[in-house]
Amino acid sequence: MVHVVITGGGGFVDARLARRLLAAGELDLAGAGLRAIERLTLIDQAGVPDDLAGDGRVTAVPGDLGDLLAAGPGPLAGAGLIFHLAAAVSGECEADFDLGMRANLRATEALLAAGRALGTAPVLVYSSSIAAFGDSPDHPLPAILDDETLPNPQSSYGTQKVIGEYLLADHTRKGFLRGRTMRLATISVRPGRPNAAASGYLSSIIREPLAGQRAVCPVDAATAAALASPDRAISALLCAATATDEAWGGHSAVNMPSLTVTVAEMVAALERAAGPAASALIDWVPDPAVERLVASWPTRFRTDRAARLGLTPDPDYDAVIAMHRAETRAPGRQSP
Amino acid sequence: MVHVVITGGGGFVDARLARRLLAAGELDLAGAGLRAIERLTLIDQAGVPDDLAGDGRVTAVPGDLGDLLAAGPGPLAGAGLIFHLAAAVSGECEADFDLGMRANLRATEALLAAGRALGTAPVLVYSSSIAAFGDSPDHPLPAILDDETLPNPQSSYGTQKVIGEYLLADHTRKGFLRGRTMRLATISVRPGRPNAAASGYLSSIIREPLAGQRAVCPVDAATAAALASPDRAISALLCAATATDEAWGGHSAVNMPSLTVTVAEMVAALERAAGPAASALIDWVPDPAVERLVASWPTRFRTDRAARLGLTPDPDYDAVIAMHRAETRAPGRQSP
Repeated sequence: MVHVVITGGGGFVDARLARRLLAAGELDLAGAGLRAIERLTLIDQAGVPDDLAGDGRVTAVPGDLGDLLAAGPGPLAGAGLIFHLAAAVSGECEADFDLGMRANLRATEALLAAGRALGTAPVLVYSSSIAAFGDSPDHPLPAILDDETLPNPQSSYGTQKVIGEYLLADHTRKGFLRGRTMRLATISVRPGRPNAAASGYLSSIIREPLAGQRAVCPVDAATAAALASPDRAISALLCAATATDEAWGGHSAVNMPSLTVTVAEMVAALERAAGPAASALIDWVPDPAVERLVASWPTRFRTDRAARLGLTPDPDYDAVIAMHRAETRAPGRQSP
Repeated sequence: MVHVVITGGGGFVDARLARRLLAAGELDLAGAGLRAIERLTLIDQAGVPDDLAGDGRVTAVPGDLGDLLAAGPGPLAGAGLIFHLAAAVSGECEADFDLGMRANLRATEALLAAGRALGTAPVLVYSSSIAAFGDSPDHPLPAILDDETLPNPQSSYGTQKVIGEYLLADHTRKGFLRGRTMRLATISVRPGRPNAAASGYLSSIIREPLAGQRAVCPVDAATAAALASPDRAISALLCAATATDEAWGGHSAVNMPSLTVTVAEMVAALERAAGPAASALIDWVPDPAVERLVASWPTRFRTDRAARLGLTPDPDYDAVIAMHRAETRAPGRQSP
């Protein structure tokens, strides 16, 4: 029996992860053998979708993570596994520095302190980001990044994520927690509505045209990105929760496998799936601020640790689009 | 005219840096031309030595850095240059996790916020440490480290230093501060009394025998270390303050040049300087906890960025001992 906690930021990853856990009903926590999921606590400012709130195993804790934990580790009581996914996204943090410091840095510090206060060293899966890396004139990115590449974030979001990685590694070294940091690739196709992430166009230029709506692409068609489908991202987080310490292989962050595609290749796949009428719904309106930020992000990885853990990238972008269409069309299926 | 602030932790580096600045009387701040040092504010819990307190340009601000800045950026008012040297040392932070989080992480966060609040983007020189690096079974250190080596600290002190580096880099990228992080090597021979740093023996096995006192060496004679004399450390900090942005070459940390020596080589130099009676004053009492921590520290660096800035390591350990003896013997000289 295990109590699982997920912190979410009103996004879809936390809800989707929760559904996958509840559907499985059990979990091989850190490779120690299957245990039934007795309780699932969802801490989310934005509230919890109805299907989850209606599950008898689910406790929804609405509110700000930092505020909730300031009063003590209450919502974490008895947790054997914590997924820490809550974060303010890159665009928000770049526009409002103090928001990012509070929502990403202080809230993560509070969560680690609360997890430590449990005294039981729960497994803590932390979703970091490839925004940990960044290209700058004085530190050009290597052509191919790997698990030893020096983080050089060019955004406050990336900086705060890297700091969380180091804090969690030290809490793990000290035996306070069993931390596993998974650096998620940019997720595409992200369901639902656009968010303030600078990478938002990497979903909206596919999602909106498939739904018959217009979308803005703020970057040049030659711009490349390292992407992963929602399904691959959830699998990476579950892998982090279920790997043995030995298989996980250290306290530092693991880069998840990603598919490297250009915007032009994404649009070509969209056309193959839905015809030229779909791609005609894209408005090409360059945004220099987004272009600058996105140009600093890495596009090509060698993900040796993830490969040893059995994780693989999406095979191609056509498969990503097909999966997105199947999910959004599935009758009776909760979406996102 | 420039107002310089130094935060210190009751150590000797801050006092020595202050003396060097006051003796020069002027400073080429960030390469923009010589300016007179009008004011020097020393923030130090342990108070300030008499010779400094008696200088008309010096303002001594006793107290805890975090507490002082909680009330606002007061002591930093008008500062064009801030040296942030205050820190709890490695041994303390390993023994008392919360102390390190407060004295190193929170106080640094408070200082960066206060420096940002000035609105004038002062130069902030941050002393980090080669404890940013660490050897672990899953992440063996490379034989030779360089400025691109991934920090993998194996102590809470090193973790907190790395986090400060990333915070300062982001404040610099945002234009809030002009940050320069210098990773100091282990300083030897450190004057004064032993402190709680796990590296303390790297000074005490020389300093105490030269003063006719016994010293304990907690590690094997074959143990190597990357060292720098106090003089080289001060020069590295001043270089960080005076380099142009272009010469400094980026927001990430610069590793200072260091001399790689074994304890056996240090003791041989001690014998050459003061005879076998001096080395006979060393008691060899292995301490597994210290040995484990020290064994995780790097010993050999290629310091390209520092070399481009004109910094060099001490030529040999005999020269380090000679300098220490000259300083401790100099009549009328304030020591440390």
